[in-house]
Amino acid sequence: MAGNTFGNLFKLTTFGESHGVAIGGVLDGCPPGIALDIDAIQQELDRRKPGQSAIVTQRKEPDTVEFFSGIFEGRTTGTPIGFAIRNTNQKSRDYSHIKDSYRPSHADYVYDRKYGARDYRGGGRSSARETASRVVAGAIAKQFLSDVRINAFVSQVGELKLGKHYTELDLSLTESNPVRCPDPETASKMEAYIKEVRKEGDTIGGIITCVIQNVPIGLGEPVFDKLHAELGKAMLSINAVKGFEYGSGFEGITMKGSEHNDQYNPDGSTKTNHSGGIQGGISNGMDIYFNVAFKPVATVIQPYDTIDKEGNKVTTKGKGRHDPCVVPRAVPIVEAMAALVLADYTLVARTIKL
Amino acid sequence: MAGNTFGNLFKLTTFGESHGVAIGGVLDGCPPGIALDIDAIQQELDRRKPGQSAIVTQRKEPDTVEFFSGIFEGRTTGTPIGFAIRNTNQKSRDYSHIKDSYRPSHADYVYDRKYGARDYRGGGRSSARETASRVVAGAIAKQFLSDVRINAFVSQVGELKLGKHYTELDLSLTESNPVRCPDPETASKMEAYIKEVRKEGDTIGGIITCVIQNVPIGLGEPVFDKLHAELGKAMLSINAVKGFEYGSGFEGITMKGSEHNDQYNPDGSTKTNHSGGIQGGISNGMDIYFNVAFKPVATVIQPYDTIDKEGNKVTTKGKGRHDPCVVPRAVPIVEAMAALVLADYTLVARTIKL
Amino acid sequence: MAGNTFGNLFKLTTFGESHGVAIGGVLDGCPPGIALDIDAIQQELDRRKPGQSAIVTQRKEPDTVEFFSGIFEGRTTGTPIGFAIRNTNQKSRDYSHIKDSYRPSHADYVYDRKYGARDYRGGGRSSARETASRVVAGAIAKQFLSDVRINAFVSQVGELKLGKHYTELDLSLTESNPVRCPDPETASKMEAYIKEVRKEGDTIGGIITCVIQNVPIGLGEPVFDKLHAELGKAMLSINAVKGFEYGSGFEGITMKGSEHNDQYNPDGSTKTNHSGGIQGGISNGMDIYFNVAFKPVATVIQPYDTIDKEGNKVTTKGKGRHDPCVVPRAVPIVEAMAALVLADYTLVARTIKL
Amino acid sequence: MAGNTFGNLFKLTTFGESHGVAIGGVLDGCPPGIALDIDAIQQELDRRKPGQSAIVTQRKEPDTVEFFSGIFEGRTTGTPIGFAIRNTNQKSRDYSHIKDSYRPSHADYVYDRKYGARDYRGGGRSSARETASRVVAGAIAKQFLSDVRINAFVSQVGELKLGKHYTELDLSLTESNPVRCPDPETASKMEAYIKEVRKEGDTIGGIITCVIQNVPIGLGEPVFDKLHAELGKAMLSINAVKGFEYGSGFEGITMKGSEHNDQYNPDGSTKTNHSGGIQGGISNGMDIYFNVAFKPVATVIQPYDTIDKEGNKVTTKGKGRHDPCVVPRAVPIVEAMAALVLADYTLVARTIKL
Repeated sequence: MAGNTFGNLFKLTTFGESHGVAIGGVLDGCPPGIALDIDAIQQELDRRKPGQSAIVTQRKEPDTVEFFSGIFEGRTTGTPIGFAIRNTNQKSRDYSHIKDSYRPSHADYVYDRKYGARDYRGGGRSSARETASRVVAGAIAKQFLSDVRINAFVSQVGELKLGKHYTELDLSLTESNPVRCPDPETASKMEAYIKEVRKEGDTIGGIITCVIQNVPIGLGEPVFDKLHAELGKAMLSINAVKGFEYGSGFEGITMKGSEHNDQYNPDGSTKTNHSGGIQGGISNGMDIYFNVAFKPVATVIQPYDTIDKEGNKVTTKGKGRHDPCVVPRAVPIVEAMAALVLADYTLVARTIKL
Repeated sequence: MAGNTFGNLFKLTTFGESHGVAIGGVLDGCPPGIALDIDAIQQELDRRKPGQSAIVTQRKEPDTVEFFSGIFEGRTTGTPIGFAIRNTNQKSRDYSHIKDSYRPSHADYVYDRKYGARDYRGGGRSSARETASRVVAGAIAKQFLSDVRINAFVSQVGELKLGKHYTELDLSLTESNPVRCPDPETASKMEAYIKEVRKEGDTIGGIITCVIQNVPIGLGEPVFDKLHAELGKAMLSINAVKGFEYGSGFEGITMKGSEHNDQYNPDGSTKTNHSGGIQGGISNGMDIYFNVAFKPVATVIQPYDTIDKEGNKVTTKGKGRHDPCVVPRAVPIVEAMAALVLADYTLVARTIKL
Repeated sequence: MAGNTFGNLFKLTTFGESHGVAIGGVLDGCPPGIALDIDAIQQELDRRKPGQSAIVTQRKEPDTVEFFSGIFEGRTTGTPIGFAIRNTNQKSRDYSHIKDSYRPSHADYVYDRKYGARDYRGGGRSSARETASRVVAGAIAKQFLSDVRINAFVSQVGELKLGKHYTELDLSLTESNPVRCPDPETASKMEAYIKEVRKEGDTIGGIITCVIQNVPIGLGEPVFDKLHAELGKAMLSINAVKGFEYGSGFEGITMKGSEHNDQYNPDGSTKTNHSGGIQGGISNGMDIYFNVAFKPVATVIQPYDTIDKEGNKVTTKGKGRHDPCVVPRAVPIVEAMAALVLADYTLVARTIKL
Repeated sequence: MAGNTFGNLFKLTTFGESHGVAIGGVLDGCPPGIALDIDAIQQELDRRKPGQSAIVTQRKEPDTVEFFSGIFEGRTTGTPIGFAIRNTNQKSRDYSHIKDSYRPSHADYVYDRKYGARDYRGGGRSSARETASRVVAGAIAKQFLSDVRINAFVSQVGELKLGKHYTELDLSLTESNPVRCPDPETASKMEAYIKEVRKEGDTIGGIITCVIQNVPIGLGEPVFDKLHAELGKAMLSINAVKGFEYGSGFEGITMKGSEHNDQYNPDGSTKTNHSGGIQGGISNGMDIYFNVAFKPVATVIQPYDTIDKEGNKVTTKGKGRHDPCVVPRAVPIVEAMAALVLADYTLVARTIKL
């Protein structure tokens, strides 16, 4: 129960520290017979990897995945898919500035207190590097869910809001700019702003919106495993996430019930979709959409005060290349986690028929 | 995996439909030797029950819990605690108006599509009545967590916001008014507003803020089972919840990292608490606080158009006594779910030491 | 994880002590739409209940089950089925003889050491009375598995062996005698022997053989969740069970591979069935059969030496009505556990297709 | 739920086919701070590996484990331990003789029927090669359980029985001969017999006895997760296992209760140990001992009739080097699975205290 497994039936277990030998995982429960497009998996990894554009961290990590098992003659076999991504920059470096002190709002302090020790090189297990394993598994989940369309995009960076409903956007434009915002004009503003923040050695947060279309009716389990509850947990498990809302979300609280209720069309679809595609925790066939809030990440390239293990005050400074805004790189992670949830709940739903 | 179990080690399984014989549950994994205060459990149930004040539904449900097992000579024995609450108003009634049509934004339609049938009397399994079982188990969890203080309160109803940080409030005032808002002045406004909404036969949403104090350092598991991810899932599993944020939440995205980072004091506590008491998914000993957004519930006492099973348009109307704003009654539910998460993660944390 | 739940998807959680208010359980994951025959469930309970014949304990327990939820208009709804069986003989009695001392080969001592306390009235949670809840759930599982035939019977009592392969027997005769041995001649000998043992105030063990026919091909999961591994765990979880073997079992070790291998017929069936219907952990469509060994139960009506909580030697004696041979009453329990495993693995197998 | 994970809290997930890129696993939940002896892990692998003696298969597999994560500066960190063992003989070979036909009593047929396809090179996922991953994790479990002694040995091969109780044996002699039987005289006979069987191109089964000493009181969970039930499942999940018995086992059924009951000494230990160290599913501090029955493995080097995918009769013959008796090589696997169960239940037991 140490928390490194996600999913009930389509089940991912990940391992690996940022500066260890390798990260990777085992995807168990993937049905047999899926003709896997390995290039598509690598493409998803490339969307997440550092160094991909001028507005993200300039670290170089090729992030090439090696598959160990579960695939034969190009198809999944139904047996567990083991895989690993070697860490290429695990060389001897100077970690003394982080070994001896706790970086504010990082996991350093709580890991030391919980485990009595930690791999202090980089973020260890708490590094966002771990999410590369999720992207691999999520890419397989997407191929399993071939009819479902999952599109995430950046809808806010700092104070800069996209300000349009997803139905007004051309989501095919998301990949046309480094910010992954499907509105080119807003994307430019966001890009300029992130560059500014980078120059300050600072960081900024944002919102990712995710839209899932063509979902069959009936995914999601009462009572505790409502579809949106599992999506929420999935998103909140991503590093730096502070909030989740779906459908009408936090804004819905100011509406009256008579206005918020989604009236039915004769075919069972609804005229409005404040429900966000989920009623009573179960997908109703309408679009699922939700927002995920990311805080500004903690690694800043500015001097800061902190404490060492003995509680002594020390002044230190982040080193090297930092990520001024992780939100663009987190878009494929949000999609991956959404795909894992949907794949899992697709399998779960199969068990509920006579 | 049908979704009726919550928790890993401190584990609640619930059963029961709103108009069946009884609802109830089994709490497994509760440590032995806890001297249970049964009255305190009943008090929590009374905070949740219908008919407790002028601003909630006037249905009468005594909600008396009967314990079957797991308690001997006033103490828990470590064996599963089985319990049930009889449904007293399960009599023959006229359900024809809901049997033959789907109420907008209820779970009727998706249950029929998923299961092929449902118990159409009231909300069946999707009824919020199910949460009474959570309150029973949560009350036991609170007694297990005797050092931890969990206080939830209403911080927004419709547009009416409390507008103060929890540290500026006297949380002991929460129970002093039927809205469960610890600011008497705001509480009065909220109460008046809810009465107005009730007269319209309409409903309104709101926000519950929950504060958890005196949490030991080290609760929460990387990677997927971060403490806030589990809290988020727990809250999103409550009926009518549409959003969850913790610490700086959605507002935190507009801050810079240099400003958002919580600087350490020499004792490991932090000067600010944008992290909301959780770093890297693990409690750091500071206060945990989060917001939960509730939509306006779907049952309105106004005529509305909908469809029947054949997709024919029908016009119908909610009957009887409705709940204009469930947020006050949801306060003990939020606390119960928070207690279940903390109890579970307390047990999990015990397994992570050599 | 306190061990009171069985199954992955067709999942039973039980509660209750022998002398508490009630025992019972929650069956979660049972598919919707099953037309339940409640009388058939009660009949299974009656097969297990005390007092049913001259060779079992003469305690009177009516064992009437009350269902709380999950059944509507005679059919399962897909929601959890909660149920309880009241304990009718929980009255004030004199338990001082067992409160203060540990009965040899009972669970008294380890419960006290593990939990620090226990419900010392009767066996508490370790009482075989708990298996009544399994029989209820197993009876529902049998109705779900309408095509599968599960027949258990007594094949050995003490030294008295049935000595025939199940294919030579008419299994419809099992219920024709109180021993539940389908060979009338052997049954008579066993019955006489059990009566003799009862007169001595002693107990005797035996073997139950279980045959499962008409099982579809493909149930069972590699690697750890092989079908026979789960059947083995299910059987070993029944009170007093000391061994499990399937197919050729312990005798198979003396055969050569060339002799033990089951040759295929053109239709995929096999000419012999040393495999016991399971190859590589997966059902192959042939009959599944296995043996379960029960020790003589520990409660004897003879004076015996033991120790009290302080380790002082005491001499005591079992009281009242004891069960000289539990094997006949365990037949429905073996069938129930087999049914639970098959129902669960039937649901699991559904998730393994593209 | 695809069955590739073992354990609740000390949890192993394995992956890999016999002729794929690699096999391996992730061990999650291992407590931090264990100073790992990597050589000791490799030694356990060497005890299992092919080619180690004249009486086992002569295939060459170096079975060198590479660790990816979870170990830092020689100690476990509490994060998941990922590892892999490369398959060195995965080269292009001629598998046509097994691709097109089903080997009797192998898993070929059921895999094809269950999954629609399989990796037909060697045994794929059903190969006993998978157990190497268990041995790695089991070796770590042994180091975690530093006070517990786990000793398995061969007690029967075909008709040749060791015929002594474990208390009469010097278990330190187990590794002194290739059969792993601690009685040198019997070992010689078994060795000679296995060589004879090999010459015939045939195989033979046997029994492994396992003794676990110095187990703390209190491991094992009522009701379904009794310690012996989990040990039984663990053993039955090993390839070729057909039976499990503990304590008095199948022989215990012929004893009377008055004789079978273990009388207490003043210190809570028992004068006899028919219970096999477990009462009511919970360890009582006495030695745990059990027997595991292995069938003769299915791969024989003799011509045999079988069917192809279309059901046509074909005559074929096993090729290359076979394993006449897997029991000696299975000794470390039995120990590994026992260690995994005890490590897991040690962590589980921690959660049962106030």
